Amino acid sequence: MALIVQKYGGSSVADADKIKNVARRIVATKEKGNEVVVVVSAMGDTTDDLIQLARQINPKPQERELDVLLSTGEVVSSTLMAMALHEMGYEAVSLSGAQAGIRTDTTYSKARILHIEPKRVVKELEKGNIVIVAGFQGMTDDMDIATLGRGGSDTTAVALAAALKAQMCQIYTDVEGVFTADPRLVPEARKLKEIGYEEMLEMATLGAKVMHSRAVELGQVYKMPIMVASSFSDKPGTIIHGGISMEVRNKARGIAHDLNVAKITVVGVPDRPGIASAIFEPLAKANISVDTIVQNASIDNITDLTFTVARGDSDKAMSLVQPIAKSIGAKQCVSDSTLAKVSVVGTGMLNTPGYAANMFRALSEQGINIQLITTSEIRITCIIAEGKVKDAIQALHKAFDLEQDLI
Amino acid sequence: MALIVQKYGGSSVADADKIKNVARRIVATKEKGNEVVVVVSAMGDTTDDLIQLARQINPKPQERELDVLLSTGEVVSSTLMAMALHEMGYEAVSLSGAQAGIRTDTTYSKARILHIEPKRVVKELEKGNIVIVAGFQGMTDDMDIATLGRGGSDTTAVALAAALKAQMCQIYTDVEGVFTADPRLVPEARKLKEIGYEEMLEMATLGAKVMHSRAVELGQVYKMPIMVASSFSDKPGTIIHGGISMEVRNKARGIAHDLNVAKITVVGVPDRPGIASAIFEPLAKANISVDTIVQNASIDNITDLTFTVARGDSDKAMSLVQPIAKSIGAKQCVSDSTLAKVSVVGTGMLNTPGYAANMFRALSEQGINIQLITTSEIRITCIIAEGKVKDAIQALHKAFDLEQDLI
Repeated sequence: MALIVQKYGGSSVADADKIKNVARRIVATKEKGNEVVVVVSAMGDTTDDLIQLARQINPKPQERELDVLLSTGEVVSSTLMAMALHEMGYEAVSLSGAQAGIRTDTTYSKARILHIEPKRVVKELEKGNIVIVAGFQGMTDDMDIATLGRGGSDTTAVALAAALKAQMCQIYTDVEGVFTADPRLVPEARKLKEIGYEEMLEMATLGAKVMHSRAVELGQVYKMPIMVASSFSDKPGTIIHGGISMEVRNKARGIAHDLNVAKITVVGVPDRPGIASAIFEPLAKANISVDTIVQNASIDNITDLTFTVARGDSDKAMSLVQPIAKSIGAKQCVSDSTLAKVSVVGTGMLNTPGYAANMFRALSEQGINIQLITTSEIRITCIIAEGKVKDAIQALHKAFDLEQDLI
Repeated sequence: MALIVQKYGGSSVADADKIKNVARRIVATKEKGNEVVVVVSAMGDTTDDLIQLARQINPKPQERELDVLLSTGEVVSSTLMAMALHEMGYEAVSLSGAQAGIRTDTTYSKARILHIEPKRVVKELEKGNIVIVAGFQGMTDDMDIATLGRGGSDTTAVALAAALKAQMCQIYTDVEGVFTADPRLVPEARKLKEIGYEEMLEMATLGAKVMHSRAVELGQVYKMPIMVASSFSDKPGTIIHGGISMEVRNKARGIAHDLNVAKITVVGVPDRPGIASAIFEPLAKANISVDTIVQNASIDNITDLTFTVARGDSDKAMSLVQPIAKSIGAKQCVSDSTLAKVSVVGTGMLNTPGYAANMFRALSEQGINIQLITTSEIRITCIIAEGKVKDAIQALHKAFDLEQDLI
C-alpha cells in the first residue's frame, strides 16, 4: 500500500461544489489502494478577506495575531473536506497544522518548519482514515500558531510527505503543470513531462508561479518526487524529480520571467572589505530577500553595487540602505521598480557553448536593452524593462527551440 | 489590583466598528487599574453561517469536525479584538480555548469543562497583557477541539473567572440585565438590580435568554459574582450573587416563560418498579434533557407518565420512547409541541402562603387552562397553551406586584 500526499490550493476548494469535486479525486486515489494524506489551502479569497478585515481594525496588525487569524482559513477548509468525504461514505479526519505535528520557529508570517512529529497523522492512517491537514501553519515551542507565508501549503505538503516517507507528493493547482514559458504570453509554450528539482527551483524562484520554491527545495533535500497537475482536469501534470536524463534532450527547459523586481544601486561605494556585509546584513535581519547582486569593476577604488529585491520590499530596503550608504561614504542610492527578469533555465546548459550568446542575440534582435546579467549553474538571467517581457520571452522560446523536447 | 473577566457576545462584536467599541470598554476597565481577561463569542451570525456552509457539503456533519469548524469563529474575533487593543496602544494577546488551558470531555457539540489550567493566561497577565480568550471551546485529552454548545462562551467566562479567582465576571450582551419579565411582552417589566444564583438559574433555564444556565450554575458553585449588562450602554446591569437579602423584598422576583416545550405522555403504564428508569435512561444516553416529569396517581396499578423536552428533541424522544412503551405494556404515547411554560420565580416564595394560589387564580381569571403544574424550592411553573403566554405573563406580573421591588 503506497502513501500519497496530495495538496489542493485555494482555487480548488473555493466553494462547496469544488470541495465535493476534490473529495471525489481523493476517493479515487484511496480506491486505487493508497493511503492518502491531503493538505488544503484556505477557500478561494479567504486569506485576503481576513487580511482586509484585520486592516479595518488595525492598519498594521501584529504578525502573531494575524497568523492566528489567517490560520483559521485552512482549518475551515480542512473540516469541510473531511465532511465531504464522510458524505461519500469514507472515514476521514481533519487535523490542524499543530495537531499534525508541524513545529515551526517564531518568525510569524513567514515561519520555517523546524521538524515534524507526525505521530497523530500515522495513528489516524492506521485507523483507516483519510487525513486532511490544514496547510500553511504550524505550532511554535510556546504552543502558538505561526504561518509559513504565502505558498506555505505547498511546503506543508512536501514536508509531510518527507516526514511520512510517502511515495509521492502531488500538488493540485489551477495550472496543468510546468510549461516551457507562460502560455498566456507564448502560445507555443509546451507542458513539460518532467523537470529536475534545480531546474524547477529556478523556474519557481523566477516567477513561474506553479509552486512555492521552498517546497521544491524540500523535495530536493528529501528526494521526494512531486507531481504538479490541475485539480480541474485528469491530464497528466509535470513530475519534478531527481532522475532526469541529462543528455538526450533539449538542455534549455524553459523560459521564466518575473515582474516582481526592483533594482537598487548604491553609487560610488569606496571599494574596501566589509562594505558588502555592512549593506546586506541589515537587509537579512529585516527578512528582506536580496536576489541578484552585481558589483561593477572598481575604478580608483570606487565601485557601484547593484542588487534586486521584490517590489514590495523596495521602500523598506531603500530606507535601510540609505543611512548605511551615507555612513560608508557612498555618493547616492537609486531605485527602479519598472524592471523584470527573463531567464533561460536548463541543467547542462552552461557547459554547452553558445547558450548565453544565443540569449543575448535574441534579445538584441528585438531591440531590448539588457540592464544586468547573472548566471547560475543552470540559468542565464537578464534584467530588462518590464514593458519588453512579452517580446523577450517569445523571442527566447523560439531561439531555444522550446516548442519541441528534442533538438 | 483586581482581576475582572469580561465576556462579549456575538452581537457585541458583529463588525469592525463594534469590535472597536468593545475595545474602548475593555480599555476603560484596564484604566481603572484592573487586570482584564476578555472572553469573546464569534462575530454576529458567523456560527450559523458556518453551520450552513457545512450542511451544503454534508447534511449531517460529524460533530467532531463541526466543532473544529465552529471553533474558528471565536478564534477570529479574539485575534481581531487583540488587534483593536494594539491599535489603541495597549498590550494584548489572543488565546484559543486550548491555549487558555480549558480542558473538556469528548461530548462534541456540547462538551463539559473538566478543568482549567490557566498557566498561560496568568503568564500573559503578568507580562501586562490584556488577555483575549476565544470562548465556546476547549481541548480534549487527545488535543482535539470540542465546543461547549450554544451559550458556551458564558460558561468559558465564568469558569475562567473561577479558575483565576477573579473579583467578578461581567457578561456583556444585547440586553440590559435581568428583567421581572420579558419587556417585549410586559411593558411594566423592571430591571432587577440583583438576583440570587438559584433565582437566576430558574429564570435562565426557563427561557429568560439573558445568559446560559450552565454559566450561572458554575457561578453558584464557585461563588463568583456575575454582572449581566448591555455592551451598548453604560447603564448598570443586574448582579447575580449569593448575598441577596431574603426578607425585606418582594419574594417573587420575576416571571419566566419558555416557548421551547414539547410534552410527551406515555398512557396506561403498569405501575411497577423500574418503569421510570426504563423510559428515562435511554433518553439520558441520547443526551436529551428531560425537564418536567409528572406521574399521575395510580388507579388499578395503571398510571400516566408525562414529561417535557425541548421541541428540537421531541421527535427523537418519541422514537426512543415508543418501543419502550410497547415493551412495558403501555397503551400508547402521545406528544404535543404547542405548549409553553410560565413560571413565577423567587427565593422564599414557597414558605410564604398564598403564592401558588395567587398564580392559579390569575391564570384562571384569564381563562387559561393549566395542563401541568410543577414546583421547586423557588419556582411555581404551569404548562399552558403557547398562544396564551402573553396574557399569562402580563396577568402574573400584575398579580405579583412586580412593577415595584418592595411590597
